[in-house]
Amino acid sequence: MASLIALAQYKSQRAALIAEDRSHRREFRRTNLRSEQEIEADSIVRRIRAAEAETIWKEDHSSIPHPFPGMEFLTGKAIIMKTKLFEILSKMPKGALLHAHLDATVNAEFLLQLAMEQPAIHVRLNEALTPANLSTNLPQFRPLPEAEFSSLSSLTDVSYPLGSWVPLKAARASFAPEFGGPEGFDKWVIGSMTINPSEAYGTHNTVAKIWQKFTSTFITSTGLIRFEPIYSEYIRQFFRSSIDDGILYVEPRINFFPKFMVGADGQDNIPHREWLVMFDRVLKEVKGEMAQQGRGFIGARIIYTTLRFITPEELEWYIEDCMALKKEFPHLIAGFDLVGDENALRPLIDYAEPLLHFREKQKEAGVDIPFIFHAGETLGDGTEADINLYDAILLGTKRIGHGFSLVKHPKLIKTCREKGIAVEVCPISNEILRLTSSMLMHPLPVLLNNGVPVALCSDDPSVFGNMGLTYDYFQVLAASEVNGLSTLGTLARDSIEFSTLNAEEKKEAIVVFERQWNEYIEHIINHWK
Amino acid sequence: MASLIALAQYKSQRAALIAEDRSHRREFRRTNLRSEQEIEADSIVRRIRAAEAETIWKEDHSSIPHPFPGMEFLTGKAIIMKTKLFEILSKMPKGALLHAHLDATVNAEFLLQLAMEQPAIHVRLNEALTPANLSTNLPQFRPLPEAEFSSLSSLTDVSYPLGSWVPLKAARASFAPEFGGPEGFDKWVIGSMTINPSEAYGTHNTVAKIWQKFTSTFITSTGLIRFEPIYSEYIRQFFRSSIDDGILYVEPRINFFPKFMVGADGQDNIPHREWLVMFDRVLKEVKGEMAQQGRGFIGARIIYTTLRFITPEELEWYIEDCMALKKEFPHLIAGFDLVGDENALRPLIDYAEPLLHFREKQKEAGVDIPFIFHAGETLGDGTEADINLYDAILLGTKRIGHGFSLVKHPKLIKTCREKGIAVEVCPISNEILRLTSSMLMHPLPVLLNNGVPVALCSDDPSVFGNMGLTYDYFQVLAASEVNGLSTLGTLARDSIEFSTLNAEEKKEAIVVFERQWNEYIEHIINHWK
Repeated sequence: MASLIALAQYKSQRAALIAEDRSHRREFRRTNLRSEQEIEADSIVRRIRAAEAETIWKEDHSSIPHPFPGMEFLTGKAIIMKTKLFEILSKMPKGALLHAHLDATVNAEFLLQLAMEQPAIHVRLNEALTPANLSTNLPQFRPLPEAEFSSLSSLTDVSYPLGSWVPLKAARASFAPEFGGPEGFDKWVIGSMTINPSEAYGTHNTVAKIWQKFTSTFITSTGLIRFEPIYSEYIRQFFRSSIDDGILYVEPRINFFPKFMVGADGQDNIPHREWLVMFDRVLKEVKGEMAQQGRGFIGARIIYTTLRFITPEELEWYIEDCMALKKEFPHLIAGFDLVGDENALRPLIDYAEPLLHFREKQKEAGVDIPFIFHAGETLGDGTEADINLYDAILLGTKRIGHGFSLVKHPKLIKTCREKGIAVEVCPISNEILRLTSSMLMHPLPVLLNNGVPVALCSDDPSVFGNMGLTYDYFQVLAASEVNGLSTLGTLARDSIEFSTLNAEEKKEAIVVFERQWNEYIEHIINHWK
Repeated sequence: MASLIALAQYKSQRAALIAEDRSHRREFRRTNLRSEQEIEADSIVRRIRAAEAETIWKEDHSSIPHPFPGMEFLTGKAIIMKTKLFEILSKMPKGALLHAHLDATVNAEFLLQLAMEQPAIHVRLNEALTPANLSTNLPQFRPLPEAEFSSLSSLTDVSYPLGSWVPLKAARASFAPEFGGPEGFDKWVIGSMTINPSEAYGTHNTVAKIWQKFTSTFITSTGLIRFEPIYSEYIRQFFRSSIDDGILYVEPRINFFPKFMVGADGQDNIPHREWLVMFDRVLKEVKGEMAQQGRGFIGARIIYTTLRFITPEELEWYIEDCMALKKEFPHLIAGFDLVGDENALRPLIDYAEPLLHFREKQKEAGVDIPFIFHAGETLGDGTEADINLYDAILLGTKRIGHGFSLVKHPKLIKTCREKGIAVEVCPISNEILRLTSSMLMHPLPVLLNNGVPVALCSDDPSVFGNMGLTYDYFQVLAASEVNGLSTLGTLARDSIEFSTLNAEEKKEAIVVFERQWNEYIEHIINHWK
């Protein structure tokens, strides 16, 4: 009897300890406010997750040796797409997408189709294509002025003069049968703009190696995207596909590093303000379209970015450029960032002086362009990339892009929790770029249990294949017994809460979101009970 | 000018923030107490680390595609052993080894040699050996009574009756040339007791798969180790090789799961108390040997363990057994633990009732056998293995074995820091058992920056090939820019501080350690400046 009492006491202490350990979790703050329906839907989802962990994830799948929930995305994707959990999450309202590089947001197949419609787009090679170099000998694209259109008809013909431009359509049509003909051409081009499993998990299985491949995808795709007639359609598709995945609002990062993009006339002559005019026009069109269809879409704002290899002196030009754009398009410019591989490029401290200046100038000009810095996207401990976290926070960053190494820093975790600095966590990106080997090794639970606000993001979905946000939400739900539907709901709400929308806009967005959420809960109960 | 002042202010805020973030680190508490010599030695080691990161770790190594400091141990070991850093660390005084399973502490080659000297040891196979099944068709060993010695002479002859015992020596001598002859036999046997890189990083590259291989190594080696004449020599070699690596004191876990081991007469008749008699005798002999040689060795104590697949009712027998051994050998029994794959076996909560009992009984009997539980050796988030951490702490564990998932639990981290519950961190074990893909992904920096006491441990070095503690210290030093020589010194000191030695013994051990440490610092300055 005494021992029964002791055991009961033990179990109650234990429940209290677990609750206290989880008390910082942001969904915990609303746990008691959840509707009966949400509690029911949460338990339905947990039941399906548990059942699928024992069935589909334990079955034999050809060419997937030992699958598990949260496994390497590029290998596991085929299984993920067969699960009920994925089907359920694809319907989930996702709130805001706060971390995505615009140039990597649209399906590579779609981009290639857009390009095929443009006679100006040409392709070339500097080295002859062979079966052995097919995956490393990458196509170079660019739009040409009409006067320079080429009459060459093949990249793979023995007579092809290396380095010469060939019209895209002709190059595709004449692609040699030994390389798979036109379908082989598509595969080759798409392969050059995406990362495949044998690269991520085999040939390029370290952070340094995979970044080489990752960077090369941008070099290829930029030749297609940064062409005025394609750019507008690219942005449109980004909006539409995001909305289709249940995203309400987007804050893409646009890389303003080159000062011009190619115009319809094939000349490098479209300045940054024209990019924003295009963005604004397409945004209005898509908003109109969605309003007509009665679908929720709050809008989009841009995080201005340049690259971390410029000098601090060169940064001054971009700061002026960003300020000028903000004055002309105050509703579009939402923040400022510097991007690129933190492990290889300049640390934030190199730019501290111009960035401190930038803050002063903003005050003087009466504009507000918050810093929203990438920082800590690294495995390093005390390396420059890891140290970037201190600078990001001291410089007043509104959110942290990635913050993968933040979990190592108790003081910074506290600061993020207390000051409400959200972390833009990109689970699939982190895994493919080899910061973590699977979702099970990802530090996200550390952030959640410490009450750091988190928004889930896709980063570069066209390169990784994680279009929309469903895949990233899937990985987070599948890899944890703590996370449930209410966790995902909190992450989605927080993506709105920590966006750069103003108070009024946030309130409006939250109203839309809560309506969507309630419908979603009802849907789960009606369809999956 | 104003901007220069702003920048200077910024840099001083930054230095203060970094210092505050690291202020919990345990070596930080003595940073200002370090001798000039230690500061110099620390900077020598940092310089060598940085130089080697740019040289040997960036060179081409045949069959190691893209090496980096902290990489997969089994692949990188050949490079590690060529570094100056390794040479330096092999001389370092290591303090105490607090987490090692005795049955996996002696080099497999050495064990095989010991076995070769024993005519009683026999080997058998239940399935015919083929080139295809060589790595999965494992030898079974056991000592036989003299009356049952076999006259068979080959395992690989076509006439071999499957399941029959063959004397070890004969089996080796006659091992068929197609399997490599006697050297092939050694390779086959050693391969069955160790994990190789293609298993860890290829065929068994998940936690669940590698545990199957890991468990099988124990099944094989137990047939050799748990034989009275071998056991003593095995313990002796464990002590000697530990001392050779600079270890002062050891606290091995002994698995008391089977109630008897095989005696010299080939019968299963040696009870637990006899194991301790042997342990005690060998310990005294080795202490005498070391005292004669003037080498530091404080001694050894045993953590009594049984396995997590027994029932709570069966546990009562082991508790009684442990209590009886503690009464007879109070200087040898140091703690109590339950071992085995936490992801697959029973959680601690299943044993809560007998364990709470155990505490009561200890009080009544006036003995103190602290719990030193394995807990959180898992990638799970909120799984039973992860939840074990709550139970370990609530049951009053003195230290935590592994605690790999502890970093997810803010409340438990605080408890460990404040109550001085040390974590036995086993970096190489965690990596080979696929909790982390490299040292760069290991959560150790989170523990260190949160001021959780840590002792580095080798876990099962005969299986992993990380004999001694030099390899584990190497991985910790190589994979971080924060960690330096003073960090390693603090880890070594803490291994003594958080051992089960009493206050008097600790003081004595620390005196020896500090003398060794000062000699070591001098050695670094004299040889490596």
